[in-house]
This record gives sequence, C-alpha cells and structure tokens, in this order.
Amino acid sequence: MTTDKLLMRKAINLSIENVKSGGGPFGAVITKDGKIIATGVNLVTKNNDPTAHAEVSAIRKAARKLGTFDLSGCEIYISCEPCPMCLGAIYWARLGKMYYGNTKTDAKNIGFDDSFIYDEIALIPQDRKLKSEQILSDEAIVAFQDWMKKEDRIDY
Amino acid sequence: MTTDKLLMRKAINLSIENVKSGGGPFGAVITKDGKIIATGVNLVTKNNDPTAHAEVSAIRKAARKLGTFDLSGCEIYISCEPCPMCLGAIYWARLGKMYYGNTKTDAKNIGFDDSFIYDEIALIPQDRKLKSEQILSDEAIVAFQDWMKKEDRIDY
Repeated sequence: MTTDKLLMRKAINLSIENVKSGGGPFGAVITKDGKIIATGVNLVTKNNDPTAHAEVSAIRKAARKLGTFDLSGCEIYISCEPCPMCLGAIYWARLGKMYYGNTKTDAKNIGFDDSFIYDEIALIPQDRKLKSEQILSDEAIVAFQDWMKKEDRIDY
Repeated sequence: MTTDKLLMRKAINLSIENVKSGGGPFGAVITKDGKIIATGVNLVTKNNDPTAHAEVSAIRKAARKLGTFDLSGCEIYISCEPCPMCLGAIYWARLGKMYYGNTKTDAKNIGFDDSFIYDEIALIPQDRKLKSEQILSDEAIVAFQDWMKKEDRIDY
C-alpha cells in the first residue's frame, strides 16, 4: 500500500472513531514530507463550535505546531471532500494538495448539505437565502487605507 | 444613527484598531436581540492561525458564550464582505443576517484576493489550481454508514 493510501486510511480511521465517540463522521491528517504534523476530527457538537470541522481543526493544530500561518509544502488527507468553509481554509493555509475519500454528494446523501452552501456562495449577495446588507462603506474603507499606509504590516 | 449603523461602526472601529496593533484590517461583531454577544478581529499573523479571520473568531466566541453551535437568531456585522471560508462559517453557524462595510473588490484592491478563492471554489476539483485526488472511497464510506446507523447521533 502506498504512503498516500496509508495516510488516507489514518484520516478514515479518525472519522470512524469519531462517530463512535459521538462526533461527526469526518477526519483529517496534515503531513509535511510524508510525516504527520497534525490530525483533526469534527468537534462541532462536542465543543459547541460550528467552525470545528476536521480540516479547520487540523489546520489550526498544524499551524500552531509549525509556528506559522503558512502551511506551504504540507498536504491534507480528508475522509470527505471539504465544505466551502474548509476549502477556503485550505487555500488560506496554502496547503499544496488535498486527498479526499467521500465526495460532497456522499455527504449530502447522509444529511450534510455542503452542496447548498456551495450553491449559495456562487451567488451575488442579493440572490442568496442569507439576508445581507452593505452599510457605512465610506467609514469601513478607512481601515483599508490605514493598512496600505502601514509600512511594517505583515502581508498574508 | 440607527442601531445597525452603530453596531457596524463598532465592527469598523475594531478593524481600525486591529491595524494599529499589528493585525489585519478586519473586525466583526455578533449580536442577539440587538445586544453584542461577541466580537472578533483578524489574528492570522498574531496567532499563527490561518483560520483566525474576524468572522471565524467572533463565531467561535459567540458559540462558546451561548453554549451552542447553533447561532440562529443572531446577526453579524463585518467591516468587510466575508471570504468563502467565513461565509461558509456563517452558514454553518446559521446566523440570520450579515451586514458588511467594504466589499470583496475593496479587499482585492489592497491585496487580499478573496476573489481568487471564490473563483476556485466554483470549479470542479479537477479544474482548480489546488491539486486534489480522490482515493480509498470504498473505505471512507464506512464512517458515513456508521453515522446513519447511530441512533443517538446529534445532527447539526
């Protein structure tokens, strides 16, 4: 069995164990140079944290462990294709590659409607089910102007 | 000035103060029945956490404070339109409405390319710049089968 498959099996085992212990059926493993840096499972209901998906949990742990917000050169193994929140986190963390087991269609079939969020995100704000409204844009822009003027800013 | 504008001004002030203290130019406020439950600022570089955007930080704090992963009935005021990660988090948290100041185009103009991630997320995995590969789907599905069989599961 290849290293990739062994690492995916680890993510899958995490997802199976997490169901047993009362969490959601999702697991993630982050590696660097083939070695495991961090793992994560879905802790939404256990931790009362709607952002505690397996991928976000693993990314936060890996970044803390490596002491950087930039996980370039790392890869992620996920028991299921990520939802938009987690896919966004994967881009922000600059992970080099993702391996996944189940698809978002598999997730939809057991009641996790990531597809709904994918569809909503593709729409302009006015067309989404989520109500939204832009206000005070003339005041909000000041922070962006300050950011551009700041010579010692840390870009990310 | 309306309550909505006062709450947005609070989010904007957080974003301005965060630039001064070395963080990114983003702030968020979560309310329930017009009262502030939690606030958040961008702490990506300060905390070495690529997921620590203002919205995610505020959502995590609000959920902890209210003791639930379900923030139905709450609203979020954000100094800038959310990136896909944060918009995903807003859906998972079931926030009722979002108010925003700057747009994702404003963010792009100062170097935060949320638009790139929006574009990527809309593509099928094979067409994205992020490399990805599906493996071991026959093993990964077991966790989903276990989940469906679990009678005392907590849906979310």
